[in-house]
Amino acid sequence: MAGLIFQALPGFRDFTPRECAVRNYLFETWRGVARRCGYVEYETPILEDTGLYLKKSGGELSSQLFRFEDQGGRDVTLRPEVTASLARIVAQHQRDFPKPLKWFEIGQCFRYEKPQKGRGREFHQFNVDILGEGGPAADAELISLAIETMLSFGFVVGDFVVRVSDRAAWIDFAAANGIPDERVPEFLGIIDKIEREKPEVLVQKLATFSLTPVSVRGFIADPANASSAYLAIHEDLAARGFTDFIELDLSIVRGLAYYTGVVFEVFDAKKSMRAVAGGGRYDTLISNISDGAVDMPATGFAMGDYVIRNLIEETTHAAMQMEVWLQRHAAACDVYVVVADESKRAESLRLVTDLRRAGISADLPMGGPKVAKQFQNAEKSSARFALVVGAEYPLLKLKILASRTEESGDAGSVVEWLTARLLQPDGPLLA
Amino acid sequence: MAGLIFQALPGFRDFTPRECAVRNYLFETWRGVARRCGYVEYETPILEDTGLYLKKSGGELSSQLFRFEDQGGRDVTLRPEVTASLARIVAQHQRDFPKPLKWFEIGQCFRYEKPQKGRGREFHQFNVDILGEGGPAADAELISLAIETMLSFGFVVGDFVVRVSDRAAWIDFAAANGIPDERVPEFLGIIDKIEREKPEVLVQKLATFSLTPVSVRGFIADPANASSAYLAIHEDLAARGFTDFIELDLSIVRGLAYYTGVVFEVFDAKKSMRAVAGGGRYDTLISNISDGAVDMPATGFAMGDYVIRNLIEETTHAAMQMEVWLQRHAAACDVYVVVADESKRAESLRLVTDLRRAGISADLPMGGPKVAKQFQNAEKSSARFALVVGAEYPLLKLKILASRTEESGDAGSVVEWLTARLLQPDGPLLA
Repeated sequence: MAGLIFQALPGFRDFTPRECAVRNYLFETWRGVARRCGYVEYETPILEDTGLYLKKSGGELSSQLFRFEDQGGRDVTLRPEVTASLARIVAQHQRDFPKPLKWFEIGQCFRYEKPQKGRGREFHQFNVDILGEGGPAADAELISLAIETMLSFGFVVGDFVVRVSDRAAWIDFAAANGIPDERVPEFLGIIDKIEREKPEVLVQKLATFSLTPVSVRGFIADPANASSAYLAIHEDLAARGFTDFIELDLSIVRGLAYYTGVVFEVFDAKKSMRAVAGGGRYDTLISNISDGAVDMPATGFAMGDYVIRNLIEETTHAAMQMEVWLQRHAAACDVYVVVADESKRAESLRLVTDLRRAGISADLPMGGPKVAKQFQNAEKSSARFALVVGAEYPLLKLKILASRTEESGDAGSVVEWLTARLLQPDGPLLA
Repeated sequence: MAGLIFQALPGFRDFTPRECAVRNYLFETWRGVARRCGYVEYETPILEDTGLYLKKSGGELSSQLFRFEDQGGRDVTLRPEVTASLARIVAQHQRDFPKPLKWFEIGQCFRYEKPQKGRGREFHQFNVDILGEGGPAADAELISLAIETMLSFGFVVGDFVVRVSDRAAWIDFAAANGIPDERVPEFLGIIDKIEREKPEVLVQKLATFSLTPVSVRGFIADPANASSAYLAIHEDLAARGFTDFIELDLSIVRGLAYYTGVVFEVFDAKKSMRAVAGGGRYDTLISNISDGAVDMPATGFAMGDYVIRNLIEETTHAAMQMEVWLQRHAAACDVYVVVADESKRAESLRLVTDLRRAGISADLPMGGPKVAKQFQNAEKSSARFALVVGAEYPLLKLKILASRTEESGDAGSVVEWLTARLLQPDGPLLA
């Protein structure tokens, strides 16, 4: 557009009202399910000391950071993820809380990647963690929250599956096959890419461990290789009625070095087989971040807003549920006051004020537009009611905009009248 | 603390659960009052092209910016405020919306200032704007929202006052006193600092305009100098019953160059006379930001989280209202399931799952702690009820933790039972 010289930066989103409402739908669903399951909310700074991420990763930093020097000469980074900050905060404040901690967070993260469909340079993330409990009951509780989250978005059996694995199974495999401890991370890196690697490269890489793709795939395919933690998790989730949502998949090891045990990913089971969330156990991170001052087992997962939104929009029943929510929240107000007689503006202002004070969302035209135009504004605002203030004040007319029917009432009892009216089945548009 | 090498950066806050709940109280109150008054929510990027702020300010950039070069060589800045981004987005998307636009935003901003009590390097801001309506009815509607916001926090008459002024009165004054147009900004800068300036410096500065402090203060003190817009706003707000909350104060001109007319500040009327919010009309900004492509009058205000929180905590009735909200939201769950017989864990897991699915916040212990310890956990979680699953399953005991009374019920109807129970006057702790 000519003259419009400024745009959002590449990979950054403007949330106009409709986009902001979609964001709020994701946030409200995430927050609601976490609170129903007994998690409490926290938040960490957007900007952190770069050393925190260096420490977490063991010295290797992603090249995809928004990293810079601040005015005080500090090496700082816009957070690419939240777990490092969580570990920092928990190490500092854990004495103040009974264990285990069940904490969740909803916030923005930043990665300097090539922007493309379904991936930006900023994204929102839902982070859920259980800290201070090392047993598989915590992993099961966490995975159950991942399942509850998907159900809350309206997904059903067959839409998604949680694939669960355990690095412990691979540690045992490595020991049984003579892989030295220091080469285990390299070996796990090969397993992580086993489905994406070129066959001849895979053969070559495994040969350095005196292994073949057949032997490794055989290990993955045999349910007898499930760890005892996996079996306990399966039993726990089965008791909750979640058998249809979980399966063993030893090919999942998750790329990041800091995972120490059970790992899992939530997959779209119908279309692209994308992972929509992932996580696992990281029992050494808090000790590592705090230089050994605090030692605490932990397990957690994260879900990003891009992938889950795409999956919702591609899945008819989930998309319809979101659309119903958006329509309920699209209304700018419930009651639009039409000033049919401009000499009654003062009375109209007072009515709007009384309604708002009573918790009813109400609005009125600011200029002095024609009455027909005011009714158009009422329709555009998606209000349910137009409250008409005219020469016959204090007698008021209430037009129900959907049915185009009409009622009358008295200005003196407008709050009681409209409160009762909004409680009727064709109730308030605003949730 | 030994070993805890990482802290939040200076001026950045960790929001542990209690601090996060306070943040959520502010956000929920802001969002609620804006929606009741017919505003819709939007959000802008945290990071913007530095040129946007350069353009808005007319070439002068604050020295207090988190400004850096990104990996693509772009000159970018963590947003110090939201209005520049709003102007950018409105210029781009205004055709999609009926006028006037009533928009609000809640989000974080960043300024590299010296951290001190009541001021950090990041803060949250509530931004409210009306765009596309140039008359005083829009300013009145906006000021009424500022008042409604204060009332929503529990403030009452005498706690705060909105001081309203109009740059138009000073433009008239300048013309009548022979001040050339190009020196008006300099003159307004002197008025802006009139209460803080050293008397002898003030005399000197005003002398360059052939004026004295007495003549200027005389102008400020005379209500006859109120602009016609001020009079219209006063009449509008009086009709709403807000006379006690507003006063004319021509000494307010607001520092920023982009204000064009009515300006106002919400003041703490009891203690420090701090401004807790401020704003005004900026009719040329959108045209300026869009290089003349879109011309649209606008008026808006912002309220930061630091000052309003301090004022709430210093004002007993507002502090009590917040504390009630925080206590209602402090509970980790409503129902804590006590597994009195470990052989009934599977049944307990199923009960928790059914309660959660029904929208009831429920939790249970993850390990197998002793029953007394489980009751302690239930108390610590601030749950209202402990639901005891023991050998007599499917018969369940419900302990009401506050009164230490007890009821019994059947596992088969647990959702109906507890839903009804939570609706009773000693109702759910979770709002």
